[in-house]
Amino acid sequence: MVGEQRRVLWEKMIRRCIELAIEAASAGNYALGALVARSSEILSESGSTLILNGDDPSAHPEMVAVRASAKLLGSRHLPGTTLFSTLEPCPMCVSVAIWAKMDGVVFGASQEDARQWVAKHPSDIYSWRMIDIPAAAIASAGVPRLWVHGGILREECVALFERSR
Amino acid sequence: MVGEQRRVLWEKMIRRCIELAIEAASAGNYALGALVARSSEILSESGSTLILNGDDPSAHPEMVAVRASAKLLGSRHLPGTTLFSTLEPCPMCVSVAIWAKMDGVVFGASQEDARQWVAKHPSDIYSWRMIDIPAAAIASAGVPRLWVHGGILREECVALFERSR
Repeated sequence: MVGEQRRVLWEKMIRRCIELAIEAASAGNYALGALVARSSEILSESGSTLILNGDDPSAHPEMVAVRASAKLLGSRHLPGTTLFSTLEPCPMCVSVAIWAKMDGVVFGASQEDARQWVAKHPSDIYSWRMIDIPAAAIASAGVPRLWVHGGILREECVALFERSR
Repeated sequence: MVGEQRRVLWEKMIRRCIELAIEAASAGNYALGALVARSSEILSESGSTLILNGDDPSAHPEMVAVRASAKLLGSRHLPGTTLFSTLEPCPMCVSVAIWAKMDGVVFGASQEDARQWVAKHPSDIYSWRMIDIPAAAIASAGVPRLWVHGGILREECVALFERSR
């Protein structure tokens, strides 16, 4: 796929993740969204459910979407798929993508974007804990070697942080 | 708790993990076992189910046990609990322990033990993929700061690898 086609597809996928994040925030969850796609086909998607379904510490939208795709395909291995997320996935979610043998990860805002935003906007309501390891560092330690690409619709994804206050 | 009492408790917990690992291997899964405990009380436990329940890439025994404890207590936060495992947990499983605000991680064999064993015992049946980041490196990047302690009943835990060939 040429660069321009790829960019258009990636932006379309991240735009859908942003919609999921906005829906999640409207329901009282973090404004985060993720999906798993195979080429242009969305296999599974999820907004954050962490707060309202409060009894699963692993229920990040990326993890929920990866599990749903595995269930859908009846396999714990998902070669040929890509994980999309509004925010750079944490080590847990990058790791599950590696275990699932996914091809790559595409995200909007970075962990560093989140860190800078949180420093300027402390919240009494939301804890913004982070595990301070970039997605690319997890990916480069795993087999197969996931590719990682950030910054797609970054400003729109950073703007979502405002909805999680 | 004094050191000797703690050692006895940890060995008891890892011994139970070894039992779970042996049961899992007998059923055709990897010989891995994990549990979540609050002081001397086991809240949840799991052998590996990855192979037989083949549609969840996140179904490591540590992840299964953490999620089960969260369900049991009706909370995604599990302060005052410890994660025990026969094998040093991967970045995914250390991360979920951090997100769950657990106190610490205790394991038997290390990732390095596994790496050395696999180099000597290649298998056609099992893939021994690893994400090459120690549990302590993940823990030290997270908040709250999990403590990590390895090498409990190490030889018995290394001997389990033989059952996963």
